[in-house]
Amino acid sequence: MLRIRLTLAYLGTAFAGWQKQPLERTVQGELEQALAELYRQEVRTVGAGRTDAGVHAKGQVVHFDPPFPIPPRGLLAALNNLLPNDMRVLDAKETNARFHARRGAVGKRYCYRLAWGGVLPPWDALRRWWVPKKPDVYLLAEVLTRCQGTHDFGRFALAGHMGTGKRGTQRTLFLTRLTVQPQGAKVVFEGDGFLRGMVRRLVGGALQVAWGRQDLSWFLALLGGDARQPVPPTAPAHGLTLERVFYRRPQRWQGLSAW
Amino acid sequence: MLRIRLTLAYLGTAFAGWQKQPLERTVQGELEQALAELYRQEVRTVGAGRTDAGVHAKGQVVHFDPPFPIPPRGLLAALNNLLPNDMRVLDAKETNARFHARRGAVGKRYCYRLAWGGVLPPWDALRRWWVPKKPDVYLLAEVLTRCQGTHDFGRFALAGHMGTGKRGTQRTLFLTRLTVQPQGAKVVFEGDGFLRGMVRRLVGGALQVAWGRQDLSWFLALLGGDARQPVPPTAPAHGLTLERVFYRRPQRWQGLSAW
Repeated sequence: MLRIRLTLAYLGTAFAGWQKQPLERTVQGELEQALAELYRQEVRTVGAGRTDAGVHAKGQVVHFDPPFPIPPRGLLAALNNLLPNDMRVLDAKETNARFHARRGAVGKRYCYRLAWGGVLPPWDALRRWWVPKKPDVYLLAEVLTRCQGTHDFGRFALAGHMGTGKRGTQRTLFLTRLTVQPQGAKVVFEGDGFLRGMVRRLVGGALQVAWGRQDLSWFLALLGGDARQPVPPTAPAHGLTLERVFYRRPQRWQGLSAW
Repeated sequence: MLRIRLTLAYLGTAFAGWQKQPLERTVQGELEQALAELYRQEVRTVGAGRTDAGVHAKGQVVHFDPPFPIPPRGLLAALNNLLPNDMRVLDAKETNARFHARRGAVGKRYCYRLAWGGVLPPWDALRRWWVPKKPDVYLLAEVLTRCQGTHDFGRFALAGHMGTGKRGTQRTLFLTRLTVQPQGAKVVFEGDGFLRGMVRRLVGGALQVAWGRQDLSWFLALLGGDARQPVPPTAPAHGLTLERVFYRRPQRWQGLSAW
């Protein structure tokens, strides 16, 4: 069965998040509307991750099963013609039913952008959180490094999504990377999965420590799942971007490499 | 008399241009509303240039005479607190009545951003014009170089502003500079003055030549004020940014340098 895999970029500012909702303008809603116009019938889509309202994406992955084939290049051009300006299809590929955008994802990369000092130009303001006080970047780097590895991130999840399945609220962060810029910073998180609001609360918590409002031990206790500690504040959605979704490469040469 | 000089940046997307209008959201309107809230009385502002609807600025200069003094640092913070997110005061300075934002300006720098090839990410789409066909960049550079100097730019002005005063529609471009980027380009124009829509029509006209739709001789005839040639199409507003306004430096050491 033919399946299409799309890579999507969007500016989250004017969307009520990824997931389709009856009365709201959502990314999935706009995408399915464009697909319905193109194929002249309802088409259901599956996204790799449900980004919250205001969160941006530059590598959201989506799949759908087309009612009839359209060559990928034509599909990409036609969709971008139908979609609003604040979302773009960056790539369209043909695949098959073995590919599943959500279930097949083995990891994701998120990026959170911070700004401090000076005045943030209005075009940066849509994608960067301006904080009134400059954090201690060495402390910030220390806290973020400690986030790496496997932890119970339950205390960093927004209420309403406390983790399901056998792994519960346990997740593994493969990598956290802080890049300090002239008047701000960029924080990258790569992990095998993210609870709802997890990146924003990790950033909010790390800043509490880097501003000297909380001790590192408070943050480490939260990482250990300590329910007696107050939860960290949530950094605003507009600083966050879903950058990439990772999939296992198809193991074509498995026989050969075993040989 | 105390006068304040502000440097302003704004994302033009959601504004009906610079100039205050009764029923529209304009940059001057929002600024004067913030000033009225701050000073508790009406304050009139003068801007260096009236940017059109959708045009951005990263160095618009504005002056106003405050009813009572507020130190510039406090003024900057208070104004940015009152202003909407898509406009920011980058700088506030105290000056005197000899400074006039519009009459004192001896030149301006505009920048027009183009994109071609690939898919334009949604956050670039607000400030860059995506053209479906890649222009010949050597031809584009040639046409833009020919724009330099003093010409009658009347054929490049949008109707409604045909130039007034002794210089009519004659203007001098000190500099035009094309910077080619991986999938697009940036065109900078510096001149002693710009007619309404002039940069957008220069870009629109230069692209006609660079796409091979018109000859260079057509463009040169327009620069000569030839009324028999068809006028060039106008490039859209969202690619244009007012980058800087130039003023003569105060001649403090005039006596000394003459000596």
